[in-house]
Order: sequence, then structure tokens, then C-alpha cells
Amino acid sequence: MREITGATRLYAIIADPIHHVKTPQAINRLFQEQGADSVMVPIHVSPEGLSNAVAGLRAMKNLDGFVVTVPHKTSIVALCDELTPAAERIGAVNVVRRDKDGRLHGDILDGQGFVAGLKREGIDPAGKSVYLAGAGGAANAIAFALADAGVRHLTVANRTQSKARDLLDRIVSAYPGLSSSVGTDDPAGHDLVVNGTSLGLRPEDALPCDASRLDFSQTVAEIIMQPAETPLLAAAREKGCRIHFGAPMLACQIELMAAFMSGSGKQCG
Amino acid sequence: MREITGATRLYAIIADPIHHVKTPQAINRLFQEQGADSVMVPIHVSPEGLSNAVAGLRAMKNLDGFVVTVPHKTSIVALCDELTPAAERIGAVNVVRRDKDGRLHGDILDGQGFVAGLKREGIDPAGKSVYLAGAGGAANAIAFALADAGVRHLTVANRTQSKARDLLDRIVSAYPGLSSSVGTDDPAGHDLVVNGTSLGLRPEDALPCDASRLDFSQTVAEIIMQPAETPLLAAAREKGCRIHFGAPMLACQIELMAAFMSGSGKQCG
Repeated sequence: MREITGATRLYAIIADPIHHVKTPQAINRLFQEQGADSVMVPIHVSPEGLSNAVAGLRAMKNLDGFVVTVPHKTSIVALCDELTPAAERIGAVNVVRRDKDGRLHGDILDGQGFVAGLKREGIDPAGKSVYLAGAGGAANAIAFALADAGVRHLTVANRTQSKARDLLDRIVSAYPGLSSSVGTDDPAGHDLVVNGTSLGLRPEDALPCDASRLDFSQTVAEIIMQPAETPLLAAAREKGCRIHFGAPMLACQIELMAAFMSGSGKQCG
Repeated sequence: MREITGATRLYAIIADPIHHVKTPQAINRLFQEQGADSVMVPIHVSPEGLSNAVAGLRAMKNLDGFVVTVPHKTSIVALCDELTPAAERIGAVNVVRRDKDGRLHGDILDGQGFVAGLKREGIDPAGKSVYLAGAGGAANAIAFALADAGVRHLTVANRTQSKARDLLDRIVSAYPGLSSSVGTDDPAGHDLVVNGTSLGLRPEDALPCDASRLDFSQTVAEIIMQPAETPLLAAAREKGCRIHFGAPMLACQIELMAAFMSGSGKQCG
């Protein structure tokens, strides 16, 4: 790592717990590749401490921004001065830019990171029909980003169907032309199948959809990074599907976060 | 530098302006030598932002402490929960330790750093008579540390004599046995002559005392680091005095600060 001096620009990630975060390593490697005199440090903040910590970060004039993760992604929303449309719709923020005057702008880049990761691998969801398993926080962000990327049809499947319905209602009100449906566990008939749940993190997890219904014409994408090849991806590979790992989403999101915080407007890809 | 991870402990220095500070480089080198998974970052905080910034630092659970410098050394006092006797007497703080529960303990280590730097070079002020030029912030810290180190006699010389008188009154009330006097510009008759003013920083500065009165039996010490050999030290060398540079004070203070913030209780030397 480059030596830290009084001129080094400051970035942070706030989380509770903090010890497991990998973003400082990834962002600091990116800063080094870019030759930026910038450093990201981990900051351990409890829910009770969040508003004081954020007021403190606002007062730090050499701080350009910070990443926000569990459990602060929803509660940080009220502490921002401005939200991007994505953050507004999803009601969550995972990255904050600090202006010179201390104003805080929140964005959420999970969904954009996922779509940019797909595109980097040559998988453009525009015009395609997509099956998304899940309707939680990550699935919300991905669903909006897929709609924004111009998918032809979006199916959302979730154990609690009302959550899938609610998510689709909000998406269709933002993207009125989008064809959509609440799905079952059957992913057949979609070009792209996306796991937007946490199923697959643990060995004992059920599959997020019925993998016996997959076929070689489909691409199956993960957001889970550990294990790299989840049981869903292993089943999809056996069925002859193209598979897409979780890692590109993180790699792209790191670049998008760095660009958003530094105000450089650069994109991933 | 060691890679920063989620487990890295956090330290800061707060100042305004910030770009010129050298403490992050020095402390991070020390952390590396110690094999500590710790990093110090610079934080630029204006006087108006100080109380918010400090409340924010208090909420950061992986932060062990921070160094405080110009212009915050006096205003930070009211934001600490506890002060060491030195900080209390001097009315200034240049290092703060954060307890696990968020309580902030302030200390000032300029004086201890100066005395530790002397001792590291084999110059023990205990039992000696000392001439100190200056009665400002740095001179205050050094005067108390010299009294604490057991000097036999302390002379304080200052252009505004009432400030020298006031400083000695406060010292004698804390160290009732100490022999003391308000001095003139004549350093003759003292074992150790200390420049506690900023005279010598700029080429056009006057000498802090009458160097023609120095002799080979005296040791002359600086707190100025740049230039290393001030006009006072150059004159003292010509008179055959032993001379003591400003650098050991900083080196010792860095070690004392790191030990205070991490609660290790280690000393310099």
C-alpha cells in the first residue's frame, strides 16, 4: 500500500460487525491500480451510534465518501441529504458521497453492480425475459436494475408471494411498459435465471428454484460469492446452461462505488 | 504498509489544515515495526466541526485514539471525559485515548516527549538547574515535565515576564519543593538551556536568549526540528556546549502517543 500522508483522501466502510468486511482490501487495491492517493478504512459503528458517526463523517473535510453495509443500509437513508432514484425506490443506501460542503448523497449499487457484472461477461439482459428468485433487499435492488437495463419480461418468485407482488407493483409503477409476473419455483421459459436470495450460502440450503426445469438455452446467474459454485450453479452446469458467478457483481460494484464516492462518474466495464 | 482489513484498529490525527502533518507516516512506521494491525489516518476538521467530529470518533468502536494538533489542542479539552494531571494543569490535550465504552481520556505529551528524548540521549535533567526560554504552549508542557523529572532549579525567561511568573506560580503550586526564578535573556549558570519558543524556525528570527553567555559546561536543547541546527544550536556548538536536537522529542512523543492510545503503557527509551 501507498504511504498515508496528510494529503491522502479518506474513505470508510461502516458496518456492525466489521471484522469480516472485504471492501477495504478491494477498494484499496483499486486505488493503488488507479494511482490514487486515497485510503479506505473500516469503521465499526453500532445502530445506536450511527447518527453520531455519520455527523462526524460529515465534519471530516478530507473524507469523500463511505460504503454502508449490514445493519445500516436502511437506517442510513434518513441521514442523507439527497438520494439517487434507485436509493429512493429501494429505500436503502449502500454508498454515500460527501460533497465539499458536507452534504451527503446516498446511492445503492447492488443492482447496478449485478447488471454491470453481467454485461462485462457479455450477458446483456436488454430485451430478455428474466426469472428472479427472491424479493428481499438484494432482489429489490437487482429487480430495479434489470428493469432499468431494459429486460422484456420480469418474473419474480418468492416463498411469500405477496412480497413478490409488492415488488413488481413498485417496479411497474416506475417502469410502466414492463411485462411482469409473479412466478412459481419453475424457471422454465426465461432467458436468464437469477438467484437473488441467500439460498446456497450454507451447504444445507434448499435450491432457490426447481433446477430440474433448467435447459441449455438458459443462463443462470448467482449473487452468492462463497461458495463460488453454489448447488444451483452446479445443477445448471449439468443441464448445459451458461453460468455466471457472483464475483463480477462485487468487482463491478467496487468500481462503481469508488467512482460514485470520488465523483469521477466512471463506469464499470 | 500492511494491508488494511476489517480487523485493523483505527487511529486518527485531527488538524486544520491537515496536508502538512507528518504524524501518520511516523506512527504507521512504528505500527509496522511493532507488527501491529493498526493504521493512522489524517482527518481534516475545522473548529466549527470539532464537536461533531469528536462525537463521531467516540461512536467508532474500532478506533483506539487520536492525536490532536493545531488549532484544536485547547478546544478538545472540554470534549474529553477525563484528563491526565498534565493535561489538566496545562489546559491542553494533544492525544486522546478512546475506551471500549467510548469514554475519551486526554493527555498532553509534548513535555514528556521532550524529557524522554533528552534521557534517550543520556541527558537526565534530575537534580540539574534548567533555563527555559518561553512561556507559551510548548514551554508550559516542557516546564511541567521538567519539574516532574526532578530538576533542582527552573528558570523561565519570557519577553512578557508576567507570563513567566504565571507559569512558575502554577508549577510551584504543583511542585512545592521546586526552586525557581523568572529569568532574563542570560542563560549563564544553568546546566541545561532549553529553547521552548518558536524562535529559530525562520531565518530572520532573533535568538531566544543571549548565546554569548553560553559556555562549554552547558547543554543546549531545541524543540525546533526544521532546521535541525538552529542559529541557537550553531552558536552553542561554537561555544563548546553539548547540543541536543529537536528530533528526539518528536520520535519519543510518537512512541508515547502510540502507547497511550493503545493502552499498552510502554514508555519511550
